[in-house]
Amino acid sequence: MTLTDWPTITDELAHLDLITDPTGVAKLSLDYYHFSPILEKKLQDKRGNLVIRPVNESEVLQIAKTCVKHKVPLTVRGAGTGNYGQCIPLEGGIILDTTKMNQIRWIKPGLACVEPGVKMAAFDKKAREIGWELRMAPSTYRTATIGGFIGGGSVGMGSITYGQLRDRGSLRAVRVVTLEDEPRILELRGDEVQKVNHAYGTNGIITELEIPLAPAHPWVELIVVFDEFMTAARFGQALGDSDGIVKKLVSIHAWPIPSYFTALESYLPKGKHCAFVMIADYDLEPFQDLVKEYNGQVTYQKTPQEASKGTSLLEFTWNHTTLLARSIDPNLTYLQTFYFTLERVEQMYHHFGDEAMIHLEFLRFHGKAIPAGLQLIRFTTEERLNEIIRYHEEQGAGIANPHTYILEDGGRKVIDLDQVCFKEKVDPYGLMNPGKMRGWLEREKA
Amino acid sequence: MTLTDWPTITDELAHLDLITDPTGVAKLSLDYYHFSPILEKKLQDKRGNLVIRPVNESEVLQIAKTCVKHKVPLTVRGAGTGNYGQCIPLEGGIILDTTKMNQIRWIKPGLACVEPGVKMAAFDKKAREIGWELRMAPSTYRTATIGGFIGGGSVGMGSITYGQLRDRGSLRAVRVVTLEDEPRILELRGDEVQKVNHAYGTNGIITELEIPLAPAHPWVELIVVFDEFMTAARFGQALGDSDGIVKKLVSIHAWPIPSYFTALESYLPKGKHCAFVMIADYDLEPFQDLVKEYNGQVTYQKTPQEASKGTSLLEFTWNHTTLLARSIDPNLTYLQTFYFTLERVEQMYHHFGDEAMIHLEFLRFHGKAIPAGLQLIRFTTEERLNEIIRYHEEQGAGIANPHTYILEDGGRKVIDLDQVCFKEKVDPYGLMNPGKMRGWLEREKA
Repeated sequence: MTLTDWPTITDELAHLDLITDPTGVAKLSLDYYHFSPILEKKLQDKRGNLVIRPVNESEVLQIAKTCVKHKVPLTVRGAGTGNYGQCIPLEGGIILDTTKMNQIRWIKPGLACVEPGVKMAAFDKKAREIGWELRMAPSTYRTATIGGFIGGGSVGMGSITYGQLRDRGSLRAVRVVTLEDEPRILELRGDEVQKVNHAYGTNGIITELEIPLAPAHPWVELIVVFDEFMTAARFGQALGDSDGIVKKLVSIHAWPIPSYFTALESYLPKGKHCAFVMIADYDLEPFQDLVKEYNGQVTYQKTPQEASKGTSLLEFTWNHTTLLARSIDPNLTYLQTFYFTLERVEQMYHHFGDEAMIHLEFLRFHGKAIPAGLQLIRFTTEERLNEIIRYHEEQGAGIANPHTYILEDGGRKVIDLDQVCFKEKVDPYGLMNPGKMRGWLEREKA
Repeated sequence: MTLTDWPTITDELAHLDLITDPTGVAKLSLDYYHFSPILEKKLQDKRGNLVIRPVNESEVLQIAKTCVKHKVPLTVRGAGTGNYGQCIPLEGGIILDTTKMNQIRWIKPGLACVEPGVKMAAFDKKAREIGWELRMAPSTYRTATIGGFIGGGSVGMGSITYGQLRDRGSLRAVRVVTLEDEPRILELRGDEVQKVNHAYGTNGIITELEIPLAPAHPWVELIVVFDEFMTAARFGQALGDSDGIVKKLVSIHAWPIPSYFTALESYLPKGKHCAFVMIADYDLEPFQDLVKEYNGQVTYQKTPQEASKGTSLLEFTWNHTTLLARSIDPNLTYLQTFYFTLERVEQMYHHFGDEAMIHLEFLRFHGKAIPAGLQLIRFTTEERLNEIIRYHEEQGAGIANPHTYILEDGGRKVIDLDQVCFKEKVDPYGLMNPGKMRGWLEREKA
């Protein structure tokens, strides 16, 4: 072990936008891992040594060169809105903040090319000028960056139509800067992008992305309430399966989750279960017939114009649900679950009762609308949390564990050899976001 | 029985556009029922007495009044491109040809309002001026009318995204003229439209329709060929399930079906199975990766501009496949099958061999992409045809029998009480397209 020569490094990069003061560095060493009491314990003291905010690819190349020269860890971050410590610098080092690389290269019908630091909502504002928008986005849409979502996200608003980020077509091309002795710029297109898609930035520094767009329909935002939770869940499935109704969001909340949405209190009758949805305004009439069929009651309806001014219902769904609930009860944590079927949802609803309050987001999974869960869990111990996870898995549900910062242990559970091999090539010294990729760690041990 | 006083009727309606000469009337007493040797035998001598081509709703009201006064059967037709005798006048009478009611009332983003005789391709040409098009259309798109498709159609190009015509949302509103003693105009909206949707014109004369639209993507047309039929079928399913690829047509043809497409001979290698598809041009790159995954070979690719000029691949798919094959071998007939699963497709493929050549059209059925079949059958006898149908049903496939002109015996098999009750109200004398609705015939017997 040699000590890192920080004064020299800082000197070499002095012409760039650096943050060296401990408060600033500490702030940019965080994400929303505190959603998990397990991660909180493990990650709370992790700090980078230096933050750099490059403004273009050529600056990224300089940073890469310095990192390799000094064998310094490098962790890339966007807005830091992830929840699993995706961008927490486990071994310190340089934090590369992409938020100043925020140029939109071009937008044309169906496709766009952007730098990684472009904020999603800001992008959509521009894309809508020609009638398009992002196919999917997380509830942190207003602040999250496109590069951050690709690096650490997986699904979101829009997934009920366009599926998951990892699906073929959700990302078209990426440019990455390597951490080789002589850093290079590589462009990956088509299926090749999977080598860096959702790899937590362990596989090269993304400097440009080509992404697909969706027609920007005028979205009406509605809340529908139901007496029975399973009726709300069935309504969500039926809406997901309604090919004649164009939609962007189908979010179902078992009572008492709505009680955490204090800003919407007047629309959420006590004891009722609710659906938060976004529907294309020209499909409102068949939507209302569907609501009638399920004996739902619309308590809130905003036109696309109204919705674009105030707070979007999006900010009560996906992981904003968790955020809002935890702001009232910090003992809550959450799970991420592929229930796949409503039968399994119902069984879990009865089995866990109040301990796991069910929050469903419907999304397309290989062409089928399925209920995914972001259940709110009343946390007691790590053992109990693991027991809950185990029970779900035994019953056939898939858990994308949000209580681990290890890439493979979160979602897919298996090591992606393509990603590991690609990392060998672009990051031979293992400097990028070290400690996150199990496939790499096990290779090092072997 | 009293004899119909045709001279008086003709006199009463003399100010309208009438066709009385037998050749003209005979021509407008046909559709494509000759696809079925069973229907051919039953329907070939059916003729109306008089054809009327009203130009607006007020003329329709006059026709309705005369029909009721003289208790004359009335059969409504569009372009007559149906295949099951939907518009064949079983009991003669007046044929109301809607093709002159071809005004587009309005087109706005997502929705349009039209008269029934508007031709689908002509409509799309107008709608595309503001970036929209019909959500679904049959292969007879160039000549078929919107009213005819609603009255007698069910699925088509576009159904891989937007599902079936009977799905909630596929038809928003209809105006119908009743055949009561004092004919009235009724407007049905929302779920109420199901009372006349796909009722073969037995339930009031449609004079106006409100329909949903889809964004008009620039569609690339491609042919992909495969060595193995089941690989082609699996490719079709995978494309149907690809949420990241926007598509409009997924049509799979087992060899020797491609041998009937003589105009495309040079793109269809002997012995190979093929897929005819339409893909949004901005999704071509992920589409090509999918082709590669299934070892397909693209032999034909037309840009949206090229495709809009020449013959569209659409005109080799859906029931145009049947049309083209029968033009070469008139002993061929066909079936319409919901296989639901690829396992069932494979089983049938091996079971029937050359007797039932498999032609699949993928469509969304309650939110899931499923393989539907328009198999070409080498016809021998009616008994054998029924045996083939029975075998499919025993194996769990759904047959929408195209060898019957009875509404309920084709698709749903069950009597739609809402439609029967609505008919009691709007057509108390049972004058509209008599002999087609089993629910009505059984009520008469009871």
